[in-house]
Amino acid sequence: MTALPVTFDDVKAAARAVGGALVRTPTRRSLTLSRIAGCEVWLKFENRQFTASFKERGALNRLLALTPDEKKRGVAAMSAGNHAQGVAYHAGRLGIPATIVMPLATPFTKVKHTRDFGARVILQGHDLIEANAAARALADAEGLTFIHPYDDARVIAGQGTAALEMLEDVPDLDMLVVPVGGGGLISGCAVAAKAMRPAIDIYGVQTELYPAMAQLFHGGTITASPPLQTIAEGIAVKAPGVMTTAICRALVSDILLVSEAAIEHALAMLLEIEKTVVEGAAAAGFAALLANPSLFAGRKVGVVLSGGNIDMRLLSNVILRELAREGRIMTLELEIEDRPGLLAQVSSIVGEAGGNILEVSHNRMMTGISAKSTTLGMVVESRDAEHGQEIRDRLAARGFIHMGAVNGR
Amino acid sequence: MTALPVTFDDVKAAARAVGGALVRTPTRRSLTLSRIAGCEVWLKFENRQFTASFKERGALNRLLALTPDEKKRGVAAMSAGNHAQGVAYHAGRLGIPATIVMPLATPFTKVKHTRDFGARVILQGHDLIEANAAARALADAEGLTFIHPYDDARVIAGQGTAALEMLEDVPDLDMLVVPVGGGGLISGCAVAAKAMRPAIDIYGVQTELYPAMAQLFHGGTITASPPLQTIAEGIAVKAPGVMTTAICRALVSDILLVSEAAIEHALAMLLEIEKTVVEGAAAAGFAALLANPSLFAGRKVGVVLSGGNIDMRLLSNVILRELAREGRIMTLELEIEDRPGLLAQVSSIVGEAGGNILEVSHNRMMTGISAKSTTLGMVVESRDAEHGQEIRDRLAARGFIHMGAVNGR
Repeated sequence: MTALPVTFDDVKAAARAVGGALVRTPTRRSLTLSRIAGCEVWLKFENRQFTASFKERGALNRLLALTPDEKKRGVAAMSAGNHAQGVAYHAGRLGIPATIVMPLATPFTKVKHTRDFGARVILQGHDLIEANAAARALADAEGLTFIHPYDDARVIAGQGTAALEMLEDVPDLDMLVVPVGGGGLISGCAVAAKAMRPAIDIYGVQTELYPAMAQLFHGGTITASPPLQTIAEGIAVKAPGVMTTAICRALVSDILLVSEAAIEHALAMLLEIEKTVVEGAAAAGFAALLANPSLFAGRKVGVVLSGGNIDMRLLSNVILRELAREGRIMTLELEIEDRPGLLAQVSSIVGEAGGNILEVSHNRMMTGISAKSTTLGMVVESRDAEHGQEIRDRLAARGFIHMGAVNGR
Repeated sequence: MTALPVTFDDVKAAARAVGGALVRTPTRRSLTLSRIAGCEVWLKFENRQFTASFKERGALNRLLALTPDEKKRGVAAMSAGNHAQGVAYHAGRLGIPATIVMPLATPFTKVKHTRDFGARVILQGHDLIEANAAARALADAEGLTFIHPYDDARVIAGQGTAALEMLEDVPDLDMLVVPVGGGGLISGCAVAAKAMRPAIDIYGVQTELYPAMAQLFHGGTITASPPLQTIAEGIAVKAPGVMTTAICRALVSDILLVSEAAIEHALAMLLEIEKTVVEGAAAAGFAALLANPSLFAGRKVGVVLSGGNIDMRLLSNVILRELAREGRIMTLELEIEDRPGLLAQVSSIVGEAGGNILEVSHNRMMTGISAKSTTLGMVVESRDAEHGQEIRDRLAARGFIHMGAVNGR
């Protein structure tokens, strides 16, 4: 086996370097999630870093390794997300000039947050690839040090401090489950965890929409695909690193894929049960536990909640979709006669059954039914799926038959 | 001054009794919320108790004080919320039979959670007052010990352990801000905090819809009011306790009132910035900081986040309303000609300006406009308020004038 590009000594050095300037996030056991997942779940709350993600670890470690001259000239990075915040925040704190290139369509709040840390933000490129090229060109032209988000030994060593802390706090973890995009976090964590506890199994998790590292890990090549919308933006990476791929192949047991629906569900559970806000990527680990119960059954599993930066409207959607999935919000379609009083009848039945009507719509243009009929669409909130069924039964008993799909909105 | 019904020794005894069976929740400084509020904000995360509220402290302390005979006969309580969970969970853990009376319309999930702890749940009464009478009658009939949610010396002493922990962790707090419903939490906290640090100022916070303790505190009487919908269910109490009122009068500096909108806003900030889920009552404290900047300016303020049990659909609503308040979601009403292609034109303008159309509706029945016109309603997401204005300006420049209110949905 050839030597890996990052050693445990590098991670320990990173821990010494960054300690004090980062939040020593807790690793906490969740009793309820453990019961649900059928294993002992230990969560590492990286969403509680100041910029709400683990990215600060690698960014800070990289910044601290700059020469005095490099510090003076400054750094460049490309990211519309957590890496941008991590670099900008710590560069600002250390008085290092930072330039962050973000794609043109980046939400203004992200631009503003990054500028508030004192960074110069340049909006360029229609996607991450174009923005990345622009950042590289700018770094070359201005003599700035480009800080790669994952394929950099100092960045990887910095990210590894997360696992070092987890195993300090819970030395007998059997398994470590880490979300994977470019692979920086899992690589650093694998180096640290395998050194501290050789028997530990490391599992990576990707969204099935962006399975690049899994494809490389299993000996394949990366299949090209169009840009896809994922809830797990933080791990939507098409080109994993060279170093990170080598480390994963050497130290990781497997890279698991999870569906978007599974990630959403896990995110909603962390919110409702654990009372913590995580972003999509950060929910992937717990989603993998739920999707692979036999793999983790009865084991002591560390799960890295990698970040908490989720758009609030997206979060609101996730909540509503979860309620629909649980049957607590249902969409009803009833064919009714188009005459006065019928909406009142239907809404009385629903109301008396304890259902809460959230939306009502009429569709008179459907030609499949009589011109004297209309389709009444209703979105109804119930206490749970059984209660929803009870409401439908009561409507049916009075002659109102639900015609369409029950769930979803 | 007459002796108070609860002493610091009682709180210390409670801490010894319950320690180990409760979560020692952290008291953490929030840098960003401190900057926003203009004072040093220290948050006590009672939403991280197992049943996600401080109520376990008092319930457990009360249960531990039962005689062997009382334990054998069992306890009764009335609550559809956190007190029910606290009593049921610890009674179940200790093998004490518990009966919880809840009002008839209690959501099934709450009933189920309580039953899962081993409690007998009885649904009775159309509101809390009827349910309470039923619980008292049942306790009398069956010889059960009724566990009051706040007007009980053991319960108050138990709640006080929250402040004891806060001042152990941050001994030099200048002020303590505590949500107030019946007054159990603030009473216990005031007893502990004033004993540990006599110079500390204690502030209670109520929603202006349920100001009973504030009215008594300021020497008035409680004005009767109809039952009102509040986001802060946990502090929607019409009749504060006798003991708790006496303790508040003796030890509390003031009881502040906050609006529903202020509570919602604070809840959304705790979610987005602090990444933590709190219920409405628990957000009241931070809302009071934002509403009274000069009172707290520059001081070291401890704020009790009393619980995290919020209905997920309500949480989703709070998020969406906050986005509307920030101008990130706006409702537009445009008068357009009723002919093909116009929706495409309008949506192109919005889309090219970077706005995201969430909903579209047509209203052809408004008689105030020409029969050849229609009102086009749109809910549009923008990056921020300025961006929303830019979208409206672009529409106006092309002749599409917004007719109605800008915000709200």
